[in-house]
Amino acid sequence: MKTVKVLAPASVANLVCGFDVLGMALADPADEMTMSLSNKPGIRIIHEDAYGLPEAAEKNVAGAALMAMMKELDPSIGFTLRVNKCIKPGSGLGSSAASAAGAVAAANALLDDKFSTDDLVRFAMSGEKLASGVKHADNIAPCLYGGITLIRAIHPLDIVRLSFPDLYVTVVHPQIEVKTSDARQILRKQVLLKDAIRQWGNIAGLVAGFMQKDYDLIGRSLEDVIIEPVRSILIPGFDDVKTRCLEAGALGGGISGSGPSVFMLSVEERTAQRVREVMEDVYGSLGIDYKIYVTRIDEKGVKINEVLQHQ
Amino acid sequence: MKTVKVLAPASVANLVCGFDVLGMALADPADEMTMSLSNKPGIRIIHEDAYGLPEAAEKNVAGAALMAMMKELDPSIGFTLRVNKCIKPGSGLGSSAASAAGAVAAANALLDDKFSTDDLVRFAMSGEKLASGVKHADNIAPCLYGGITLIRAIHPLDIVRLSFPDLYVTVVHPQIEVKTSDARQILRKQVLLKDAIRQWGNIAGLVAGFMQKDYDLIGRSLEDVIIEPVRSILIPGFDDVKTRCLEAGALGGGISGSGPSVFMLSVEERTAQRVREVMEDVYGSLGIDYKIYVTRIDEKGVKINEVLQHQ
Repeated sequence: MKTVKVLAPASVANLVCGFDVLGMALADPADEMTMSLSNKPGIRIIHEDAYGLPEAAEKNVAGAALMAMMKELDPSIGFTLRVNKCIKPGSGLGSSAASAAGAVAAANALLDDKFSTDDLVRFAMSGEKLASGVKHADNIAPCLYGGITLIRAIHPLDIVRLSFPDLYVTVVHPQIEVKTSDARQILRKQVLLKDAIRQWGNIAGLVAGFMQKDYDLIGRSLEDVIIEPVRSILIPGFDDVKTRCLEAGALGGGISGSGPSVFMLSVEERTAQRVREVMEDVYGSLGIDYKIYVTRIDEKGVKINEVLQHQ
Repeated sequence: MKTVKVLAPASVANLVCGFDVLGMALADPADEMTMSLSNKPGIRIIHEDAYGLPEAAEKNVAGAALMAMMKELDPSIGFTLRVNKCIKPGSGLGSSAASAAGAVAAANALLDDKFSTDDLVRFAMSGEKLASGVKHADNIAPCLYGGITLIRAIHPLDIVRLSFPDLYVTVVHPQIEVKTSDARQILRKQVLLKDAIRQWGNIAGLVAGFMQKDYDLIGRSLEDVIIEPVRSILIPGFDDVKTRCLEAGALGGGISGSGPSVFMLSVEERTAQRVREVMEDVYGSLGIDYKIYVTRIDEKGVKINEVLQHQ
């Protein structure tokens, strides 16, 4: 039986001013999965973590992604997937995207790369649909491609990989629950044109800043006048964390995806560590449990770690 | 008496998906100006063109820009400015910006580059305020810096010069009047969030396309779901011109500034010439007079052509 092990990275969607269109993969944390081809048709999912996620394929994010892929495959193929989730569901760090992207990337490796990476994005979005009710690729695309990706459009899919300079990422996940679907519902359906103009000036600046490796421009462009003012209300300590992280030398940052995680970018590791201390202090003072990662941008996307051939 | 001659280029603001934040300078047309320092305080403006523009400094776009500059100068200085406008006022090709930017650049050359280019942008915006009621820099910045510029913000001013590949520009100016102030008034104050997301995906794609020299990405990103559907109604033949120019091989394009001029980008000169033929055909059939330019992106901004020292 052919078996692959994969690591599917966490990711930060939106990147402050790029709501629904920008995403960045993280070197840490990552979900661990093992997948085998099976002669028995169907999808079997076993969770080795303790999050109590549903294992029936149609109710499981990885399962929904695999089911979308199966529609374009010989129906006699079957998969067995073992998942050890290290990205906590509901963290705002692309946990569902890692499940979906990791599963379809694993299956594709078992199928000798039958599908393109864009195909995998398409399949994995069915997992996101199950998780949040909306097909979006701002976690899926960086998770599969690595690095920082622009999802210019999803109909038809148009993913652009952006170059970027060395950066450290500090992420705090306060252990409170913010559901992606709730975080979407509180957004206004209409926005002021003047705010939209400011936002597209910022995303244009952020893209130029990444590509020109202009740290100051990246910092100035990490401003969100539309989503953050609404969603940050759901995150205790947000304003305090942000203000103090900037004072500690972070370039900028904001809500990771729909939250509650908050990320900050820094040019140097020692700054990223100071940012970690600030985050510890804020959430320690608030008496809210938290988990912090000081990490880099993952450049490869889902990693296929091992292919074993058994009799 | 010290005298300079300057050429101030036309410019295309917005670049379809970058309303109020992107602009591009054109090699042709350009306004011609001659400026002399004078011992007599005050600003004297003489128009050598036949557009009947006011010559009193406070009512003249170049004059308003110079008056903003004079606030930071020795009050005993005077300027005499002769202007031959080759960019027709009201064309949507940055005519007022060329007047304002050319005047302050000329004055700065006479003052041995006392001010930075960002200072000149700031002064010239006072000319735009007089022309359209709003301080904006999406024509001023490319006119002064050349090339393609992002105006990420104007308070404080944050201008980013973008790299770009070889491109030909075809511009048609149908001889009808669209006032910038009218073109602003018909815009909605609020836009749908989903449209804004599409727009910032497009501007991010356009910036990445320019910088990666990816012609296809530039073409796909030249889409405006917010401004063009409203403003194009003011421009006869717009949909027909756009559809047929794309069929003729143009990468994409749209309204130049607030119109009525329409521009198209092409990779090759022969395509840009085919686009010209299409434009001629459409406006010829409609019985509307027009002027067409087939040109390049100007890379230098306002050109100081000559400095003469008289006794």
